[in-house]
Amino acid sequence: MTLALTMGDPAGIGGEIAVAAWRAGAPRFVALADPDWLAAHGAPVRLVAHPGEATFADAIAVIPVPLAGLARPGRPDPANAAATIASIEHAVRLAQSGAVTAVVTNPIAKSVLQRAGFAHPGHTEFLAELTGVPGRQVMMLACPGLRVVPVTIHVSLRRALDTLDTAAIVEAARTTDRALRRDFGIASPRLAVAGLNPHAGEDGTMGTEERTLIQPAIDALRKDGLSVSGPWPPDTMFTPRARSAYDVAICMYHDQALIPLKTVDMAGGVNVTLGLPIVRTSPDHGTAFDIAGRGVADPASLIAALRMAEEIAAHRAAGLREPTA
Amino acid sequence: MTLALTMGDPAGIGGEIAVAAWRAGAPRFVALADPDWLAAHGAPVRLVAHPGEATFADAIAVIPVPLAGLARPGRPDPANAAATIASIEHAVRLAQSGAVTAVVTNPIAKSVLQRAGFAHPGHTEFLAELTGVPGRQVMMLACPGLRVVPVTIHVSLRRALDTLDTAAIVEAARTTDRALRRDFGIASPRLAVAGLNPHAGEDGTMGTEERTLIQPAIDALRKDGLSVSGPWPPDTMFTPRARSAYDVAICMYHDQALIPLKTVDMAGGVNVTLGLPIVRTSPDHGTAFDIAGRGVADPASLIAALRMAEEIAAHRAAGLREPTA
Repeated sequence: MTLALTMGDPAGIGGEIAVAAWRAGAPRFVALADPDWLAAHGAPVRLVAHPGEATFADAIAVIPVPLAGLARPGRPDPANAAATIASIEHAVRLAQSGAVTAVVTNPIAKSVLQRAGFAHPGHTEFLAELTGVPGRQVMMLACPGLRVVPVTIHVSLRRALDTLDTAAIVEAARTTDRALRRDFGIASPRLAVAGLNPHAGEDGTMGTEERTLIQPAIDALRKDGLSVSGPWPPDTMFTPRARSAYDVAICMYHDQALIPLKTVDMAGGVNVTLGLPIVRTSPDHGTAFDIAGRGVADPASLIAALRMAEEIAAHRAAGLREPTA
Repeated sequence: MTLALTMGDPAGIGGEIAVAAWRAGAPRFVALADPDWLAAHGAPVRLVAHPGEATFADAIAVIPVPLAGLARPGRPDPANAAATIASIEHAVRLAQSGAVTAVVTNPIAKSVLQRAGFAHPGHTEFLAELTGVPGRQVMMLACPGLRVVPVTIHVSLRRALDTLDTAAIVEAARTTDRALRRDFGIASPRLAVAGLNPHAGEDGTMGTEERTLIQPAIDALRKDGLSVSGPWPPDTMFTPRARSAYDVAICMYHDQALIPLKTVDMAGGVNVTLGLPIVRTSPDHGTAFDIAGRGVADPASLIAALRMAEEIAAHRAAGLREPTA
């Protein structure tokens, strides 16, 4: 079995990190991409019509998704937006049909796609839409030793404060708990829920959301039998010792989750979408137009994303073979 | 010359880490403390009337500040609040008179002192009051490879958003710049200013404070000739590579500063108060009542605080000897 790797924005670093990942012996993937574009990054490519044909190791297997325009590194072209989107759609169909075990997505540039009519807030929301579960997706970022889930994501900090509620915390935590069991093979996931305010509010003297929103969510989750701790003071919950006491940190806003993750491990972070019927991972960086084409892009995050996709798919397959309790 | 070390809350870990720091060969200090309490932690103590007498290395020099009640580990007693405060006041007077080069403070428990009538929001504000510069103090946290300054500090996240303004950012950055030159010997400090929102607002689509509050502060600081960059996306500005490009990160709220600092280096972080006429450092942890008296407290942060106080004092002394440009 094989993984599907999307093209991402062809003006970004997706091509060069795909080639570097293949050279580094990453898990086998079939690229949904323009074959000439990929070959231009210096690896042998071989066309296949179906992932099942991708049984070789001496070239990158490519299912062709032709570009409309030139792909110049660092110079994104809206004319290529349709191909970027088609690559994602094709990969999702392959995963839905079982022809690939997972989808790994190369970075896209939302603003470039939006100029071409792409109406989704981002990659993740588009995938949720394609797989029929809009609004149910949860973003998890993972690196060795740390997993984080932001409950609110790509909104201003003020809007995060205004929209955070108990239901959103509960929903994100439940989806995360299920995914850690099914996809990561963790029998009893330990969830650590962050506070929102400095020192988790310090008994209400520095904010009350811990009492009014977060503690009720923790209580509800415990009632369901989940192993949940918190609300923790945000600044001390990401030290090495604190990290060893939980399997995932449920965070209240984007940077509360992403600052510690990227401080710990910038290069090897993986973005996993939980709550989708298909398996989807991606590197945790963007298109990096500023360094595209210079041969300096680090493939570590893509390699980690390919490995994690393979592991999740293996856990799901094992789960399907075993009777569930 | 010697440093002054305050007692902190006698029910906390201050005594045991003071003894451990002395055993580990930390820079020489005179403790403003109850001698029996300190001796009970297993080190020889010798009374002195003045820091100038503290020229020996075979005992901890103590200027007596007697406790009113028993000091039971983990059981703070408001009866001892007066001695805790007297220790701080005495240390500040010694620094103001030049009898010690710096004040290093052991952790206090604000809530215990408040029950005894202490009306200051915290340690730092009390020191600013005692030295005649209320409201002018800036908190900097430092560990090897990273310095951070939160512009808003011990308030709820919502209040931080409501009170953050251009003037506060400019004032904190100016005080930081002056202190890095005078106290840390950095000739041209590089200040990196964080954004407030995810991705620093991503061109205004995820928040506008970068444009309305932060960029104007950066512009004003540059006009003054300061070396200032930003606003940076908060999640990527604390990676090892990003950290190497600046001397201090000016952060918009408590956890934006403290999460990366404590994620990088929990044990050796130092809290430095900038903007005071005296030199003041402290460990970046609290009283740790939960582990007090068990002999497991890590003295690394206090040792780092003593070393940093000595270094800052040396830089100030050198600056006074040299003609300024």
